[in-house]
Amino acid sequence: MNIVGVDLGGTFVKVGLVDSLNGKIKRKTEIETQVTSGKDSVLKRIAEAIQKITAGENYIAVGIGSPGSIDKKRGIVRFSPNFPDWNNYPLGPELSRILNKSVFIENDANSFVLGEKWFGAGQGYEHIVALTLGTGVGGGVISHNILITGSNGIGGELGHVIINPQGPLCGCGNHGCLEAYASATGIIRMAKEKRKKFPDSEIFKANEITAKSVFDAAKNGDRLANKIINEVVEALAIGITGFIHTFNPSVIIIGGGISRAGDILFKPLRERVEELVMPSFKNSYKILQSPLVENAGILGAASIVLQRIGKRD
Amino acid sequence: MNIVGVDLGGTFVKVGLVDSLNGKIKRKTEIETQVTSGKDSVLKRIAEAIQKITAGENYIAVGIGSPGSIDKKRGIVRFSPNFPDWNNYPLGPELSRILNKSVFIENDANSFVLGEKWFGAGQGYEHIVALTLGTGVGGGVISHNILITGSNGIGGELGHVIINPQGPLCGCGNHGCLEAYASATGIIRMAKEKRKKFPDSEIFKANEITAKSVFDAAKNGDRLANKIINEVVEALAIGITGFIHTFNPSVIIIGGGISRAGDILFKPLRERVEELVMPSFKNSYKILQSPLVENAGILGAASIVLQRIGKRD
Repeated sequence: MNIVGVDLGGTFVKVGLVDSLNGKIKRKTEIETQVTSGKDSVLKRIAEAIQKITAGENYIAVGIGSPGSIDKKRGIVRFSPNFPDWNNYPLGPELSRILNKSVFIENDANSFVLGEKWFGAGQGYEHIVALTLGTGVGGGVISHNILITGSNGIGGELGHVIINPQGPLCGCGNHGCLEAYASATGIIRMAKEKRKKFPDSEIFKANEITAKSVFDAAKNGDRLANKIINEVVEALAIGITGFIHTFNPSVIIIGGGISRAGDILFKPLRERVEELVMPSFKNSYKILQSPLVENAGILGAASIVLQRIGKRD
Repeated sequence: MNIVGVDLGGTFVKVGLVDSLNGKIKRKTEIETQVTSGKDSVLKRIAEAIQKITAGENYIAVGIGSPGSIDKKRGIVRFSPNFPDWNNYPLGPELSRILNKSVFIENDANSFVLGEKWFGAGQGYEHIVALTLGTGVGGGVISHNILITGSNGIGGELGHVIINPQGPLCGCGNHGCLEAYASATGIIRMAKEKRKKFPDSEIFKANEITAKSVFDAAKNGDRLANKIINEVVEALAIGITGFIHTFNPSVIIIGGGISRAGDILFKPLRERVEELVMPSFKNSYKILQSPLVENAGILGAASIVLQRIGKRD
């Protein structure tokens, strides 16, 4: 069967028509979000994009992965930092009215773990912890086959678990959250802080410091870059060890732009986590790189529908 | 209906006949565990204790809260640190054979959260995080009404979430676990470490340093005792903030010997957690002291049965 997945971002909205049996994206399109045009305009253009890619094809429902705090039962965006006029916006019901289809919404980090479960590295597992390492750190947990969202649906904020109370200030106001280390923001901050001590680092040769330039420099043996990656790995290892002790998951799946660094991140991370976990947890889990890459958003959004209806055919 | 709850400890086994409708313990008894007598002897004496307190009364099943790693599906104690000859011992099936009743087993920290849900401060809630602060720190989580035990049934080890990687060595081999601060072991360690600097502290007036003597001294204004409690509170607040961000629970319930310190622990803890949680989580939870006190073990064990059969009458 076909499902529409909508990956709602602050800059772009990606819309895809997904074959739920194999996760193939039959058609997709991308529009600019243009938040400042107002929510009615954004809604109208999302609906048009869906109508365009589904022309002549049947589909059963729409899933939307949205940033922010979501009331999943009622399909309402409670608030979303980059969408200032969307407070308590009934995005689901409004879109459903235009399209005459069911619309399901989840927070985008939660839809990421669903995408991994239905189409990615989490297939066949009932206990999955997922992290997206991008500008920030998003988290999503499936435990006992249930998406863990908590009493108000706002759980799974794994990026804001404090892993070092003496650590750097995080955007949330606390010190030493996982996000303060294992995000592009954290990596760039660390590079800037150490610039005086390592003025000749390859990191500073380009116009702009990015997480990618740090990983690239590390692969070339750059000392500062490797120091930064050690910090990222240590922070991730401490956080993931806690998640393993808490959830006893079968797999920990890491996605987002930073995950594409590959072995230079995953090899030391796997070693360090295996050192840190308690004996009974050793070899009880795998740490995997998300295979979904640029389709993670659309497939995650489509998976919201599969998770709610509990089947794929 | 009646249920038998068995609280299996390293020193004592408490056995109670519980009325599941109101959590009243109709009869109870306590026997010495005598682990060194061998598992067959312990089993036989547990069975006799159950037969004694249930004489003339019908009961539907037995729940056992056991330390260690439990295979709940098969009723097997995989291993338990204080029960060296119990590796892979089929405690459930063996006891079931003697009594001709169903026997359900859970890890004791998990049975604690179940006891709170069915008979304690967690009644009516579907999202509960529970901590027992004793010699160590035990954890149990109910999320979306499901006991979170993970893929091998060993999750919920909230005492071994690392909250400060520069912190003191924990019994598990890592540094700065929650247990290294918020347990009797951690409190006594902190007192001993600071003895030279605070030789006149009231804590050292008694023959033995205990967690209780530290809390008592703090209530009398003792400086060192208050410093230690500040550390306990800070560690618990960091850990609990992480659990709130992860699970978005309705209630966090704290039991175990240290919880009996009462307001001197709970008041600063509530204030500090509310400071640390992100804005969307403020006022989303309550931190409660376990009301079950010395019956927590038996009621928790009885609750294992209720959780498995999903009802209390």
